[in-house]
Amino acid sequence: MPTTAPPELLDRLHDEMGAAVRALQAEICAALERIDGRARFSADAWDRPGGGGGLSRVLQDGAVFEKSGVNVSEVHGSLPPDLAGKIPGEGGAFAAVGLSIVIHPASPMVPTAHANVRFIRRGAAAWFGGGADLTPYYLFEEDCRHFHRVLREVCERHEPGSYARHKRTADAYFHLPHRGERRGVGGIFFEDMGGDLRRELVFSTAVARAFLDAYVPMVERRRDLPYGEAERRWQEIRRGRYVEFNLVHDRGTIFGLQTAGRIESVLMSLPPRARWIYDHHPAPGSREAALLDVLRTPREWVDL
Amino acid sequence: MPTTAPPELLDRLHDEMGAAVRALQAEICAALERIDGRARFSADAWDRPGGGGGLSRVLQDGAVFEKSGVNVSEVHGSLPPDLAGKIPGEGGAFAAVGLSIVIHPASPMVPTAHANVRFIRRGAAAWFGGGADLTPYYLFEEDCRHFHRVLREVCERHEPGSYARHKRTADAYFHLPHRGERRGVGGIFFEDMGGDLRRELVFSTAVARAFLDAYVPMVERRRDLPYGEAERRWQEIRRGRYVEFNLVHDRGTIFGLQTAGRIESVLMSLPPRARWIYDHHPAPGSREAALLDVLRTPREWVDL
Repeated sequence: MPTTAPPELLDRLHDEMGAAVRALQAEICAALERIDGRARFSADAWDRPGGGGGLSRVLQDGAVFEKSGVNVSEVHGSLPPDLAGKIPGEGGAFAAVGLSIVIHPASPMVPTAHANVRFIRRGAAAWFGGGADLTPYYLFEEDCRHFHRVLREVCERHEPGSYARHKRTADAYFHLPHRGERRGVGGIFFEDMGGDLRRELVFSTAVARAFLDAYVPMVERRRDLPYGEAERRWQEIRRGRYVEFNLVHDRGTIFGLQTAGRIESVLMSLPPRARWIYDHHPAPGSREAALLDVLRTPREWVDL
Repeated sequence: MPTTAPPELLDRLHDEMGAAVRALQAEICAALERIDGRARFSADAWDRPGGGGGLSRVLQDGAVFEKSGVNVSEVHGSLPPDLAGKIPGEGGAFAAVGLSIVIHPASPMVPTAHANVRFIRRGAAAWFGGGADLTPYYLFEEDCRHFHRVLREVCERHEPGSYARHKRTADAYFHLPHRGERRGVGGIFFEDMGGDLRRELVFSTAVARAFLDAYVPMVERRRDLPYGEAERRWQEIRRGRYVEFNLVHDRGTIFGLQTAGRIESVLMSLPPRARWIYDHHPAPGSREAALLDVLRTPREWVDL
């Protein structure tokens, strides 16, 4: 259940969340540019006809990152009828402010990573939501453990025991039922925790702030590993699954399509290249098959 | 409104449709293999746990066709709850039999083409549906006119004036509202015409039978045209739109995902390769921009 609060408090939280995600966007883009060393983030400010707008920052064809988006959006107005029955709260007035990060590296040895945090308000009700998850193409268990360990620290600082809950929610959410696979090795996902909104603001921004700590070490460790056409092909097949998840299941993408967000910003999460090969199965015993095993049966990467 | 009919007649129509689409599948695959000259169609028979099954035939990495699927499916059982409110008729018992064709040629000079026909039955109600549409990457107006002319003939033979109606339905259906684009230059789309079921069976199978006449001439005319990396890249960008349409809007795909059809058969329509470049716009005055103009404002290709 979302929390209800006086409009002045909701306005203030909305403004604070906006300021926080704008600052995080600048920091994260600067850090990723330093790592990449070649390409730079573009900056496209856009307005939404129904109310609000955003700043989309995208880096393409870098030395390390093939396509990365770090977007801030702040939209408000009347809730589209399609969504009215699907989100909590009452009335037609809504506002949402959030940060969305999706990083598709060039090398199949470096995982795709995603994080987003958002504050949504409908009438007198409001809630925070977000998450972070990792989508490797080749499994380095040390990387999975590190990613989860950093997220666990953020969760446990906020509320002891919450990592286990958010980790299970992520395993349930980042799921392609039609494939019987998760899209990656998970992370955390949380929404509408129903607690004190100011504490949730602190938690949500802490998740976004921890993202680089969770992800950058594996970029540095794996960026120079050799790979060839076969590994690249596998990466593109798995990126097809990423497309399937985002277009069929991802709530943020569907929210963006239904609220007529700026389409290039909504779909910046889609990978630069994807491939669909009919009835493809990796060879038994291969590294590709080892990844699939984990996608089919999510693991615990750190102690709960 | 679907037509209601006695169960014996519905059984007979179901069986006749099944026999017709199986024969068409064999003919179409044989014709495409002759044209390709190199690759052959695989044949995968599958069972659906809830009832029914199908035969999926896919050709990959051909000389002309990069990926083509010609699938027959015959599924029946209890309607999934998600679908119960979305399709006409009453009760939980349903059956569907149909043929689905999607052809993605290697050359960007040769359009992607699609056709499907289906007979769906729910309780005592039943209807036919289907369509055919063309998705070029480069515009050859002669090809678009030919494709529509063949479809017009089939429609007008069935019911004078019906081409105009089915053509408008296709323009409305093969539409990506979030892009403000159609996925191609259209064709026809029809569903639940509410007429005599036996006449609709004849019409539906005639549409499938006309598919090769509508499509093959342009394959022969364009298959040897030269192209380079730039044209291939544009083809992959447009194929990204094809993916967006199929995963977000296509009723057959959504029906397949919700009825737990065989996933590789449901998603055989997805292109072999696709690309998403952030905020890509073709150069003004280019051939790519000329195609976009037509996708944004559907044309009449033949007299109505």
